Amino acid sequence: MTDLPRITPVILSGGAGTRLWPMSRDDRPKQFLPLTAEQTMFELTVARVSDPTRFDPPIIVSGLHHGTLVDAQLRSAGVEAAAVILEPCARNTAPAIALAARAAGPQAVLLIMPSDHVIADADAFHRAIAAALPLADDGWFVTFGITPTGPETGYGYIAVGEGVAEGVHRVHRFVEKPDRANAEAMIAGGDHVWNGGIFLFRADAYLSALATYAPDMLAAAQAAMDGADQHGSHIHPDAAAFANCPSDSIDYAVMEKAAKENGGRVAVVPVSMGWSDIGSWDALHDFGQKDESGNVHGGDVFTLDSANNLIRSDGLRISVAGVSNLIIIASGNDVMILPRGGSQAAKAIAMARKG
Amino acid sequence: MTDLPRITPVILSGGAGTRLWPMSRDDRPKQFLPLTAEQTMFELTVARVSDPTRFDPPIIVSGLHHGTLVDAQLRSAGVEAAAVILEPCARNTAPAIALAARAAGPQAVLLIMPSDHVIADADAFHRAIAAALPLADDGWFVTFGITPTGPETGYGYIAVGEGVAEGVHRVHRFVEKPDRANAEAMIAGGDHVWNGGIFLFRADAYLSALATYAPDMLAAAQAAMDGADQHGSHIHPDAAAFANCPSDSIDYAVMEKAAKENGGRVAVVPVSMGWSDIGSWDALHDFGQKDESGNVHGGDVFTLDSANNLIRSDGLRISVAGVSNLIIIASGNDVMILPRGGSQAAKAIAMARKG
Repeated sequence: MTDLPRITPVILSGGAGTRLWPMSRDDRPKQFLPLTAEQTMFELTVARVSDPTRFDPPIIVSGLHHGTLVDAQLRSAGVEAAAVILEPCARNTAPAIALAARAAGPQAVLLIMPSDHVIADADAFHRAIAAALPLADDGWFVTFGITPTGPETGYGYIAVGEGVAEGVHRVHRFVEKPDRANAEAMIAGGDHVWNGGIFLFRADAYLSALATYAPDMLAAAQAAMDGADQHGSHIHPDAAAFANCPSDSIDYAVMEKAAKENGGRVAVVPVSMGWSDIGSWDALHDFGQKDESGNVHGGDVFTLDSANNLIRSDGLRISVAGVSNLIIIASGNDVMILPRGGSQAAKAIAMARKG
Repeated sequence: MTDLPRITPVILSGGAGTRLWPMSRDDRPKQFLPLTAEQTMFELTVARVSDPTRFDPPIIVSGLHHGTLVDAQLRSAGVEAAAVILEPCARNTAPAIALAARAAGPQAVLLIMPSDHVIADADAFHRAIAAALPLADDGWFVTFGITPTGPETGYGYIAVGEGVAEGVHRVHRFVEKPDRANAEAMIAGGDHVWNGGIFLFRADAYLSALATYAPDMLAAAQAAMDGADQHGSHIHPDAAAFANCPSDSIDYAVMEKAAKENGGRVAVVPVSMGWSDIGSWDALHDFGQKDESGNVHGGDVFTLDSANNLIRSDGLRISVAGVSNLIIIASGNDVMILPRGGSQAAKAIAMARKG
């Protein structure tokens, strides 16, 4: 076995999470809330890649006004970051990763992870990383493909191609969020996995792909880092330079293009690891610990003859009797009530209530 | 037309109203809340009988710890009471009325009214009072019988006997809260009305009926008034004497017995006057002003694709989408959610949440 490189986790923490309103808000979005455990999803994410025998200290990329929250949650997770890059404005994932790649240095192998996903089976995740590492070290882009549990239309899909190593396959192609019929066809075919937004690659591979596919983005990100201010672990990229950066996701800006290139070295490691992006209150009911009546509770909740509800409160007292299949969320001064299966309405309510 | 006497309203305001928890609480029960209008039900009740050409100032009977609330709501209704009798403990309606009868003097004609009922058609009520007044002045007990709207099992019923004056009938008998089958039979028969707890009679007639049917109660109530302290309009009956008083309703202690006496002069005026005792949150939906989707709202409420709900808040922001036929009540720090038709559970929740 060759001597494999260490890994630098890059934790993307710029999401707004309005789908989990009213708990998730601008000043404390989803990833910074203890929704799935006593720890927040951010804390769980940094802790998951904190084994010092394999991982270097992480690089966090976050919104400017969440710097204090990031520091506090790093402390409570017992993790010291290599850098906390505070984006002056939001420009989606591709520029955020460019900033992190510049901060990490060209030889670093970056493990890109959203901060607001749960992974119940961390061992499976680590085995997938180990399978991917030799190819990433060799200059490949490696994605982790989530074994689908149903024909979801809210995720991108990855068509799995021929094997290139033990547990690793070439990406045949990336598929944007499909309609229902296409999602069902892909699930029936058994040869597609979900794109969970987790990637492993070398910093120099990413930056040279940007030079080819998105040179304006690379130039703006480099200028922002060249003009950055540093205060302790906090890095403040130059605001004017970063404002000029085009906004795009890593999937569109790099991965889809790289996978289409003749001989593009883009791989996927299919993995079943108890993954969820907790993209809705419905997902939190699915994921949560249920009582004998199928209710998932959190906070000061009293139930009588009630079944299969998700009821969470961060302060108010909630009492229910004779209701089922509801989502009831109380946070601060707000109470939201939806039917289970209808939690996509949280976003519309969040918009209406912002005014 | 003979010269008819003036009327002294007696407003019974000692109820606890746990069926409307969490808004109705010990420190501010149902009658003191603006549930059906901008005014509270207490305010509406005193205003309804404030025409000085027919009514003398009212006598209020209330719990000791609600004296300040009564004063404030009398002021906001623009009504000055003849007396506010503050019961040192709760002994049900028969003793409360005995206190009021003693305060009013023997010749007064008393109009006994609960403070927590709504009467949408006040003119119909006043016509019924006018029809009843000559008999009451002549020593009869007159009740007002609510035209039933369905086979309710939560009310007492009155079997209507032969006519004794224009719009006035002898009471054939009082029927305690029936089971469903008996309620349906009474409704089908068309000869029963609901007992709404509203009465008209002379003070001396009541006190002499008590002397016959409940002499211990009369003695205790008289002793309590003989030993009363008065501060302005506030009358504080002697606590030790009133504690000795048996607890009973006017229906059991006086009316049922008087109606059974051979030749008992007990009458009923059937009246359709938009009456409701607002005995549950369900009743408040039935009674309330509905939007085009059948929702009844109060407070800071936002709805999307939602129908036939009752949603009330006295402070918290409530947002719902895609729900129907729910009762959602937010008061103070409490939120209660029930299905419509299931609002009797409010009482059990109130008990559980008191601990």
